[in-house]
Amino acid sequence: MSIAYSLLSPLQTIFPPHQLSTDAAECAAYAYDNSRREAIPDAVVFPTSHGQVMALVALCREQRIALTARGRGTNTTGASVPVAGGIVVSFERMNRILKMDPANRLAVVEPGVLNADLQTALKPHGFFWAPDPTSAPFCSIAGNIACNAGGPRAVKYGATRDNVLALRAVNGRGEEFRCGKPTSKGATGYDLTRLLIGSEGTLAVITEATLKLTPLASDKRTLRATYVDMVAAAAAVARIMAQPVTPCALEYMDDEALRLARNHAGASIPVAGAMLIIEVDGETDALPSAVAAISRAAGGAGLIELHAANDANEVANLWAARKALSPALRTIAPNKINEDVVVPVSRVPELIDGLKKISARHAIPIVTFGHAGNGNIHVNLLYQPEDQIQAGHAPACLSEVFDLVFSMDGALSGEHGIGLAKREFMTRAIDPVSLDLMRRIKAQFDPDGILNPGKLLPD
Amino acid sequence: MSIAYSLLSPLQTIFPPHQLSTDAAECAAYAYDNSRREAIPDAVVFPTSHGQVMALVALCREQRIALTARGRGTNTTGASVPVAGGIVVSFERMNRILKMDPANRLAVVEPGVLNADLQTALKPHGFFWAPDPTSAPFCSIAGNIACNAGGPRAVKYGATRDNVLALRAVNGRGEEFRCGKPTSKGATGYDLTRLLIGSEGTLAVITEATLKLTPLASDKRTLRATYVDMVAAAAAVARIMAQPVTPCALEYMDDEALRLARNHAGASIPVAGAMLIIEVDGETDALPSAVAAISRAAGGAGLIELHAANDANEVANLWAARKALSPALRTIAPNKINEDVVVPVSRVPELIDGLKKISARHAIPIVTFGHAGNGNIHVNLLYQPEDQIQAGHAPACLSEVFDLVFSMDGALSGEHGIGLAKREFMTRAIDPVSLDLMRRIKAQFDPDGILNPGKLLPD
Repeated sequence: MSIAYSLLSPLQTIFPPHQLSTDAAECAAYAYDNSRREAIPDAVVFPTSHGQVMALVALCREQRIALTARGRGTNTTGASVPVAGGIVVSFERMNRILKMDPANRLAVVEPGVLNADLQTALKPHGFFWAPDPTSAPFCSIAGNIACNAGGPRAVKYGATRDNVLALRAVNGRGEEFRCGKPTSKGATGYDLTRLLIGSEGTLAVITEATLKLTPLASDKRTLRATYVDMVAAAAAVARIMAQPVTPCALEYMDDEALRLARNHAGASIPVAGAMLIIEVDGETDALPSAVAAISRAAGGAGLIELHAANDANEVANLWAARKALSPALRTIAPNKINEDVVVPVSRVPELIDGLKKISARHAIPIVTFGHAGNGNIHVNLLYQPEDQIQAGHAPACLSEVFDLVFSMDGALSGEHGIGLAKREFMTRAIDPVSLDLMRRIKAQFDPDGILNPGKLLPD
Repeated sequence: MSIAYSLLSPLQTIFPPHQLSTDAAECAAYAYDNSRREAIPDAVVFPTSHGQVMALVALCREQRIALTARGRGTNTTGASVPVAGGIVVSFERMNRILKMDPANRLAVVEPGVLNADLQTALKPHGFFWAPDPTSAPFCSIAGNIACNAGGPRAVKYGATRDNVLALRAVNGRGEEFRCGKPTSKGATGYDLTRLLIGSEGTLAVITEATLKLTPLASDKRTLRATYVDMVAAAAAVARIMAQPVTPCALEYMDDEALRLARNHAGASIPVAGAMLIIEVDGETDALPSAVAAISRAAGGAGLIELHAANDANEVANLWAARKALSPALRTIAPNKINEDVVVPVSRVPELIDGLKKISARHAIPIVTFGHAGNGNIHVNLLYQPEDQIQAGHAPACLSEVFDLVFSMDGALSGEHGIGLAKREFMTRAIDPVSLDLMRRIKAQFDPDGILNPGKLLPD
């Protein structure tokens, strides 16, 4: 695709040559994300200032050009794929931590700061930022904000929406605004901050974020619990969440996920019907009683073994196995469908049971793992596209998975978002009035539909 | 005021006689709230079902009648005063707890359930709902949701916005919708739930709420720290919040507030320039190290005495004194102006210092107390309306208080909301683009402006 001079010329006024590319190869590098979908933009720009973003949005609005904001493209839904062409604005060079402020438990960052870089910078101050997606070493803060990212810690410390205090942004009218305050409380008008979080760049482009920090716990214990089957493990999860000690991670893997993890991490990963990784953190002197409470809840019918990790190496092994699952599954089934549905915790056993039936009915292997403490289950449909029968069944299989989730008062996505991949299911996930209100809100922030068109809301 | 037959007749179709009143005396009882402002409605209705609320909103929209939803009128901003007349819908009879679900850490309630009644019902299950305004025994859950209520516990457990999972509501178009899910995570479209929280009944009328529950800590310690002056106390607050142990309450009173508290609670309340009430909760075995960490931070320049409460009676006394302050101040100055500004915690010393200067300049006593750990300061301007000089100075004095707060990146309200009392200041509190976006959102939810007209947004 070649870019019109009428667009290129004003872009060159805003961006010097090293911040602007229309080169086909470079544009192709910004065409895709972790969804493996792709669409080549007409240009990619690399702003270094809020002012450049303001000028860019104004230009795009004037010329009705699609503008897709991008962190590091680690999302799995196609949310950063520029399906309508136009311009990709990559925030990789707006990556400064502007302020570290432990007394106010906040940090101010540019959108492109990497999650892990922020955590590293915060550690000496005794704080962390709660969201910890598996992609933390290479995903950006504003990307986390755009899709309301979670991670294992969310079960105790909340997802992105619970951990942002204020934003600076530019809406689709090209107007800049600030919402929220660098304070932990506020009751001053409508909550535009949380409206932007999870909106996947469809309402505004974020140019600065004030993040809520949490004190690092001084100590942690990691437990491994194995069960005869997933239903027994899921029942244990519900018992753990019904008692007062909140774990800071409550992850699970099913039997097939365990088999894959063993391939990765070796014989240290046990053979079982299902496994939980449970972590509790806090003051060192409180951990024995916390571990005892969690152990009581984890026990019961179907428990094979409850094992406390003896050293940091054992803990690292467990987590490496858990975090390697998603890429490992992709190796087996490059076209796997990876969902992250969420249901009330007490209904996880029922979900697991229903998934088994759907899997059998369509002869498509389903592997599950994920953030059990939130009822947030990564459901992987491992179909082979060259198997025509499987490929033919995949859409119906996925549709039945969602029907099952909706029948349990669950949601389409816990932390990955909607993007391109799930927007067609939004009419089943959200009631018509809410969907209409969302569309109306979108029209106010972005009347010409220039911001990340084709995402989140169905046509 | 008398009600038109064209309105009364369809109202009678929706509500049987015992759920509808146009009696002047009864209407007068629903004319005011704790702001001491008042305006008499044409009718008061007492729905017992979602269906009645649907029919009511449809009727109001059809006839362009103002509709003001009301919990128990404990708010201090006039948010529930029906300034445009019309109908008050009191939710006092929709007061059932519909579901208690510890395994999913949630409860489902009708809007009129009292905060304290919910807490009492949750206690045997080992859980609580975090918001704990001073008015908890007589304020409703939907009232808490409408103004994003906080309370002392918010410093550790968050305000209302952090503790609601899902809502059922009727917008100003008369359309019902559900937003959010009974799950602790979700990334499925725009966050309408949090948009409604703090919107003071201007976007939709809430008919059901799914609340996020928190496990009760097994134990708690209460400390009292006295300082030579407020600036020393405020510096201690900043030190406490900069270290990792988060207190579950961090309240303060200035010297004048302490004097009033002594009048109420007797000599057990110390004479000092300022006092902090600090609570830490957790597992019993963790409390000694938590208390030690807090004590280290509370110490330093200006500390007079740090005292750990010896028994439940001493704790009760401290809290009774703190909670009696607001009514006590009203006895002294019935027309006191009570603000609840919020600034970054580290800037509280600067705020206190600035308030002293404003107080001196206008010869109006300013008494402060509040949720220091959030930087949420209740600023009381104790002017006597019969003192013409004081009364003349009061508006300028208040305006300077807000200017000071805004200069410190603070907010107009931490937990009371805007209502009638503060809407004229919104143009200084919120930037023009954000305010315009709020107005546009309001127009989508309530195109005819029937829901709580004259509140929150300035004309």
